[in-house]
Amino acid sequence: MSKVIKGGTIVAADRTYEADILIEGETIAAIGPNLVGDEVIDATDAFIMPGGIDPHTHLQMPFMGTTAAETFESGTMAAISGGTTTVVDFVIPDGPDGSLIAALDAWEGRAKPQVVADYSFHMCIVGWNERIFEEMQAVVGRGVNTFKHFMAYKGALMVNDDEMFASFSRCAALGALPLVHAENGDVVAALQQKFLADGVTGPEGHAFSRPPEVEGEATNRAIMIADAAGVPVYIVHVSCEQSHEAIRRARQKGMRVYGEPLVQHLTLDEGEYFNADWDYAARRVMSPPFRNKAHQDSLWAGLSSGSLQVVATDHCAFTTAQKRMGLGDFTRIPNGTGGLEDRMPVLWTRGVTTGRITPNEFVAATSTNIAQILNIYPQKGAILPGSDADLVVWDPKKTKTISAAGQRSIIDYNVFEGVEVTGLPRYTISRGEIVWKDGQNEAVPGRGKFVARRPFPAVNKALSTWKALTAPRLVTRDPKLMPVGV
Amino acid sequence: MSKVIKGGTIVAADRTYEADILIEGETIAAIGPNLVGDEVIDATDAFIMPGGIDPHTHLQMPFMGTTAAETFESGTMAAISGGTTTVVDFVIPDGPDGSLIAALDAWEGRAKPQVVADYSFHMCIVGWNERIFEEMQAVVGRGVNTFKHFMAYKGALMVNDDEMFASFSRCAALGALPLVHAENGDVVAALQQKFLADGVTGPEGHAFSRPPEVEGEATNRAIMIADAAGVPVYIVHVSCEQSHEAIRRARQKGMRVYGEPLVQHLTLDEGEYFNADWDYAARRVMSPPFRNKAHQDSLWAGLSSGSLQVVATDHCAFTTAQKRMGLGDFTRIPNGTGGLEDRMPVLWTRGVTTGRITPNEFVAATSTNIAQILNIYPQKGAILPGSDADLVVWDPKKTKTISAAGQRSIIDYNVFEGVEVTGLPRYTISRGEIVWKDGQNEAVPGRGKFVARRPFPAVNKALSTWKALTAPRLVTRDPKLMPVGV
Amino acid sequence: MSKVIKGGTIVAADRTYEADILIEGETIAAIGPNLVGDEVIDATDAFIMPGGIDPHTHLQMPFMGTTAAETFESGTMAAISGGTTTVVDFVIPDGPDGSLIAALDAWEGRAKPQVVADYSFHMCIVGWNERIFEEMQAVVGRGVNTFKHFMAYKGALMVNDDEMFASFSRCAALGALPLVHAENGDVVAALQQKFLADGVTGPEGHAFSRPPEVEGEATNRAIMIADAAGVPVYIVHVSCEQSHEAIRRARQKGMRVYGEPLVQHLTLDEGEYFNADWDYAARRVMSPPFRNKAHQDSLWAGLSSGSLQVVATDHCAFTTAQKRMGLGDFTRIPNGTGGLEDRMPVLWTRGVTTGRITPNEFVAATSTNIAQILNIYPQKGAILPGSDADLVVWDPKKTKTISAAGQRSIIDYNVFEGVEVTGLPRYTISRGEIVWKDGQNEAVPGRGKFVARRPFPAVNKALSTWKALTAPRLVTRDPKLMPVGV
Amino acid sequence: MSKVIKGGTIVAADRTYEADILIEGETIAAIGPNLVGDEVIDATDAFIMPGGIDPHTHLQMPFMGTTAAETFESGTMAAISGGTTTVVDFVIPDGPDGSLIAALDAWEGRAKPQVVADYSFHMCIVGWNERIFEEMQAVVGRGVNTFKHFMAYKGALMVNDDEMFASFSRCAALGALPLVHAENGDVVAALQQKFLADGVTGPEGHAFSRPPEVEGEATNRAIMIADAAGVPVYIVHVSCEQSHEAIRRARQKGMRVYGEPLVQHLTLDEGEYFNADWDYAARRVMSPPFRNKAHQDSLWAGLSSGSLQVVATDHCAFTTAQKRMGLGDFTRIPNGTGGLEDRMPVLWTRGVTTGRITPNEFVAATSTNIAQILNIYPQKGAILPGSDADLVVWDPKKTKTISAAGQRSIIDYNVFEGVEVTGLPRYTISRGEIVWKDGQNEAVPGRGKFVARRPFPAVNKALSTWKALTAPRLVTRDPKLMPVGV
Repeated sequence: MSKVIKGGTIVAADRTYEADILIEGETIAAIGPNLVGDEVIDATDAFIMPGGIDPHTHLQMPFMGTTAAETFESGTMAAISGGTTTVVDFVIPDGPDGSLIAALDAWEGRAKPQVVADYSFHMCIVGWNERIFEEMQAVVGRGVNTFKHFMAYKGALMVNDDEMFASFSRCAALGALPLVHAENGDVVAALQQKFLADGVTGPEGHAFSRPPEVEGEATNRAIMIADAAGVPVYIVHVSCEQSHEAIRRARQKGMRVYGEPLVQHLTLDEGEYFNADWDYAARRVMSPPFRNKAHQDSLWAGLSSGSLQVVATDHCAFTTAQKRMGLGDFTRIPNGTGGLEDRMPVLWTRGVTTGRITPNEFVAATSTNIAQILNIYPQKGAILPGSDADLVVWDPKKTKTISAAGQRSIIDYNVFEGVEVTGLPRYTISRGEIVWKDGQNEAVPGRGKFVARRPFPAVNKALSTWKALTAPRLVTRDPKLMPVGV
Repeated sequence: MSKVIKGGTIVAADRTYEADILIEGETIAAIGPNLVGDEVIDATDAFIMPGGIDPHTHLQMPFMGTTAAETFESGTMAAISGGTTTVVDFVIPDGPDGSLIAALDAWEGRAKPQVVADYSFHMCIVGWNERIFEEMQAVVGRGVNTFKHFMAYKGALMVNDDEMFASFSRCAALGALPLVHAENGDVVAALQQKFLADGVTGPEGHAFSRPPEVEGEATNRAIMIADAAGVPVYIVHVSCEQSHEAIRRARQKGMRVYGEPLVQHLTLDEGEYFNADWDYAARRVMSPPFRNKAHQDSLWAGLSSGSLQVVATDHCAFTTAQKRMGLGDFTRIPNGTGGLEDRMPVLWTRGVTTGRITPNEFVAATSTNIAQILNIYPQKGAILPGSDADLVVWDPKKTKTISAAGQRSIIDYNVFEGVEVTGLPRYTISRGEIVWKDGQNEAVPGRGKFVARRPFPAVNKALSTWKALTAPRLVTRDPKLMPVGV
Repeated sequence: MSKVIKGGTIVAADRTYEADILIEGETIAAIGPNLVGDEVIDATDAFIMPGGIDPHTHLQMPFMGTTAAETFESGTMAAISGGTTTVVDFVIPDGPDGSLIAALDAWEGRAKPQVVADYSFHMCIVGWNERIFEEMQAVVGRGVNTFKHFMAYKGALMVNDDEMFASFSRCAALGALPLVHAENGDVVAALQQKFLADGVTGPEGHAFSRPPEVEGEATNRAIMIADAAGVPVYIVHVSCEQSHEAIRRARQKGMRVYGEPLVQHLTLDEGEYFNADWDYAARRVMSPPFRNKAHQDSLWAGLSSGSLQVVATDHCAFTTAQKRMGLGDFTRIPNGTGGLEDRMPVLWTRGVTTGRITPNEFVAATSTNIAQILNIYPQKGAILPGSDADLVVWDPKKTKTISAAGQRSIIDYNVFEGVEVTGLPRYTISRGEIVWKDGQNEAVPGRGKFVARRPFPAVNKALSTWKALTAPRLVTRDPKLMPVGV
Repeated sequence: MSKVIKGGTIVAADRTYEADILIEGETIAAIGPNLVGDEVIDATDAFIMPGGIDPHTHLQMPFMGTTAAETFESGTMAAISGGTTTVVDFVIPDGPDGSLIAALDAWEGRAKPQVVADYSFHMCIVGWNERIFEEMQAVVGRGVNTFKHFMAYKGALMVNDDEMFASFSRCAALGALPLVHAENGDVVAALQQKFLADGVTGPEGHAFSRPPEVEGEATNRAIMIADAAGVPVYIVHVSCEQSHEAIRRARQKGMRVYGEPLVQHLTLDEGEYFNADWDYAARRVMSPPFRNKAHQDSLWAGLSSGSLQVVATDHCAFTTAQKRMGLGDFTRIPNGTGGLEDRMPVLWTRGVTTGRITPNEFVAATSTNIAQILNIYPQKGAILPGSDADLVVWDPKKTKTISAAGQRSIIDYNVFEGVEVTGLPRYTISRGEIVWKDGQNEAVPGRGKFVARRPFPAVNKALSTWKALTAPRLVTRDPKLMPVGV
């Protein structure tokens, strides 16, 4: 049975135009005027945009002695309610010597029966040995072309520079993309101890111990290592000017670096950690912490200028009860917060309605750019014939006040509590199925499909060519050895 | 009679994929596998890309006491032979008090009967008065949404800061985009006199008198004026790091600034002006002059990072005989050179085959980005159903050595003489018509059509919203007046 | 009769040490332990520093239809009460064709009988013609080695780029230093009209119409022109990051650029212009206007890092009655405010006691650096045998609350009203004479002497050498012509 | 017996003037006209400058399986022959657990009997434990206020980020200054293996494996760690724009960072490593390696703008025979080269005679700045009454061609071989004694004295104040906790 979306204005990353969309099965069959289908979806006075892709979630993640309360079911339910139709979650091996494949199987096992949206995985590299080296190829074969590295969480997930160089080099060979959580874990750990010793035990200590310079340094370092290894690099949750500056500096040298701000960092500031209510502050504890308005301005400018490409959430939601594990010691507050449900409405409200970004840039930042980076475009991230019919019918006049009371996420608070948003999904459509309609979920757990991703996107290929041409050659003692421009 | 392009790989700004293209009449009717048409165009082992758009030409331009030898006919013939299917030429009013409309009519009159490619116009603002203010609206009504301002050519085309601010403000109101030739004309004029007085009379004096700092300064100034006027701005022929740096600095503050390097500045260096052969050097005289390799690296990085968007030519071709007007006085050498024919092959050879940019970025820089900036996308710059069938079937293996002997341009030299290129058009197709085939022109003068452009692209709208929200408000003496973030 | 300062700690730009100072006549005769003199000045628990030099004052300046109320007598009285023993005032010719020499005579005539501190002059270039070109040499012969240029005050003091280039080139030849008031006068004038038209008539319109970008642009332009002319340049009243960034960018290319923040811009912010009291706000109207705290942080960092060298006041004091000329039209509010009396205590309090700068950097910024730049070091700006005995015995524990009620300036308000300062002069000594003691003036009008300054300081000489070595040479058509490093 | 230097022009960091200098015993007794002494030293047509201080030498250093051939005797002999009267050498503990005090004793024992110039020590921190923490205080008590950290030489001298943070924090508490060798040792080690694996075994592999980005990264990281620890930091041998950029970026935020380029990096380029003669190339192997001319321009600009402060040599001289330990494996070539003898003549020739820097800036870079940074000014680095009579009578017309044949260093080559210098010492005077005269050594081994240095220079004190004022305070849950400007 076909569906046709009628009366709307299509907003893609590259253009805005009026057309109907015909959906047959799971894909877009046609785009144009006067299309006819079995079922009509009304998009009058609405925009139709590619379904959002959130490339940064941690659902049911075991972390810091507990497990993120948000499940694959509740998390993807939250996602579709906010217009996001694909999430990419992080697979974490069981310790530095853990098997990547075993972890991938475990994550797959947890996700598959629960998900209501499509999903994919990033693999985390939290140690280095020969098996990991070998398994990386198998992981790529399983449709995972991204490997994440933590420069923070010393003693837990953190890897060192030599491990990063080794893993990045392996990524280069496999046509994969390294991702990086960029904070200097040694300095964070030392500052945590310093502040605890000084008697700072509350959530504000979290912000104090992770200043922007610590993030900027690690970003700069990750970029250098990627450049030496000859591979592009993607910096997750860029929260501050220092990190953004390092990214810009690299890009203006021709390096291939991507940056991902979170919707939280774009809109919430460090003042949150000084709230007199411990619970309120602790719920906002995530790494990196929120920054001030100058940093927010920097991030917004990155979205409009193209130096930052993707807006994500790092959705990793712990309940207040879980947060209270850190009462009296901020280093024990589970790091993470929510956002899957609110990413698109909040970004639209603070970005598009203010004129900071265009509607097309909104689509690029929430869907198209990451689809291209992950090499799943135009299956995802596009409104084109043949693309998956992942669509959101966006009503730019619809408003609500964000509140935990009304959310799909199963946690008991919302960091955007009280924020009024203008611009919300009327329908969310996933592979041709209406999964969200008039504020009601229509999706069945387990309907989501795994999205496999191929290695060697165009940027990796171009970079390999460039590195090969400009690399020092093998013959020694030859005066012509010195690298020159091509 | 329909045509189908078969067997090729489509390269668009956003993706690369294999598909046939069905052309009906002047537009693309379908894209997909196994399409059937009356005539088959063979694209085996070739890429199919959107026809190039060169947004910066001066055909038959009256300038410096002569008229550019390249006619609309020969120039557009050169264009299609190199894969470019649309050119945008500059209309120059007859003096600072000249009528814009009269000039537009004159340019239209010259172009229309001659052109073999589609064409459009930018209007130059070379003075300021009430009539110009009024006529700008009529010009926009005629489909011209861009207005160019020269900060150089003192005593001729140059406008001052107050004139620029007035014109930019008018552009803001009309939803138009100001373009700027950015060199400090006062300092150039003074340096010219200084070098002549020092006995430097040859073409090298041209380079000496237009150092990168002079261009960087003017770029920075134009951007500030545009920001004050609340309008995006487009810097033509960005040749150096200084200018690029000013653009990057502005963009990272959220300003809406575009930069256009020329293929010449990306590949040729200042050493050309020191050739012992006066003719050789004089033929390369253009403003800004060629720069060194460090500047070239900066420009290439701009293309891959997105801080520069468009590669053009500033094609303004004078014969050697015309160049000799400046024998003994470099300030009298007509400024300008060629490139229309070679832009795409040279950019492909030096950019794509080296891995500096991806094939998709090549398409973005030669066609898609400028189509979006000029608000004619996806009529132009796209391979989408409904788009004009402006296509180039690009053979990435085809090679030639560039030579004036074999070129379509009517001038007697070529600044790329001797450069070997790999990657050339097999076919060039303009609105469904094969205009270039196997090295032969198939086009009839006058077949080109004017491309009208609408004002108020998305970026102008977003910027207006942002400026309105953040502008100081009218009520005076109110402590809440102070501008704050939105 | 000799004097000896005993018991203090000498703070110079290069070091801090305990020693007595013996003064004979007008100069320092000896520095060391256990010195003996006829009169003992007690410096127990105090610092002894070089007397301050304020290189930016406008006493009795005819401007905007009135004359600055602060006279040479009251102004220099205010200076010595705050530890400043030398002021450098601006001579302004009578219109663009006015004689420099006549103006110098006029200023000299006004100043000489009144001054209680030593003084010197900068000459302003407010137009350009052959007489000005000639007179500049005579001006240098009169001991004035600095020429100021206004890029703002369109229709009044403003000069254009070609005039600046000509004057800067003349400075290069004469070994003089150009100074620049850097704001884009065209854009300021246009913005003024825009805000008036929008109904913004109060003092906040002054701030709105002179945004930081307007200053940054002009700074950047002035630097480029100086570089082209081959002369160092000094930017007066650097108020913002944009201007400071342009200075840093030039310096890191080896250009010789100096920047002078004012004590007001270091400590007062734009919020002042939004005070509900028109008089309060109007009294703070000066150009450039005060900026926000991010700009202040930038300026302070410039002082500690050396990218900014001098802290001045731009003391140009109008009474409230005079300010009211601009009631209903902010463009008519006389631009200028006070600070001569408070510069050193405020800078010490906000800079040294907070640890932003060291005591030595305080001395460098208030005295030594400008003495070196003006080529009057170590006659001024130093505590060395043979130097003029211009000294301030500084009590770092002494406090007061700044108030117009208690000031020496004759205007009826103080922009630092209510600021508590810690660190004040116990004695101010000018050429061996105690002119300020225990809060009481001891000086007689007319006692101040003119400080003549020689051209060609070391920096000018070095820059000339470099420019000569790297300049394009005269022989044409020579492949070796291309500039190369030395 | 007193000495008087007559007829010369004194060049100090702050000024240039004509005066005689009277020396009594080891110190300067008087400066002025017409001084009389027992012995006259003729300075006609010469400059008198403070004796050079080279803060970066490794004499007789055990390293990479051998010991630097240059002894304290030959090295300090070389120093005085080139105008340098003080060297600061690095004490290296015996492994990561080695005692600092034992090492200091060992170095002292080696140096004392041999030195002909004055000397001082930096202490290296090559591991971290409680004894090191404790001994650091004793080391400061012994007159050593600087602690160096290697971020390279993995498996040997390298320390990690947590060790650096710990040591830097200890420096902050002791009023000492951390020094840093900034190269990412992990990445260097990995690149070395990569190039060896690729068959690159010659000295060019040394340059390939230590690209500028690797140094820039480590510099950036060291600065961040110092900022977090609240201490100034000094980056040794800054060789490239990447490192210099990190320094500038920090300084413009108010951080207290110093940078030291070497005379080799200012004047020699990477082409040296591609010389067909293995010995020639291997003799130039040092870390970081030489860079290209763009980097040199950056370093020179740093000296004139003040973002770099000190020119040193990293004199660590191995013979050709020693270098040959690395035949067939560049990673075994002992790292280090010479320069002590040539630093001042080469810097003068390439810097002062070209106009890149003024004579005063030359004195600042070779002597005064480092004396201030090391807190031994004005005992050293100054020409002031009471200062040590460490002086060089500099003949700016004297020339020679540098050659190993004529040098005092005992190694068998000179990296500046063939360079013509203009500007050489006529006399070198150390604590009143003529130690170098007319090209002849006059000094006796063991005459040199240890220069003790006190902690807590003004910059450390100011920074501590600032950090204390702006640090997060102890009371938790207080909304006023958030850091604000002072």
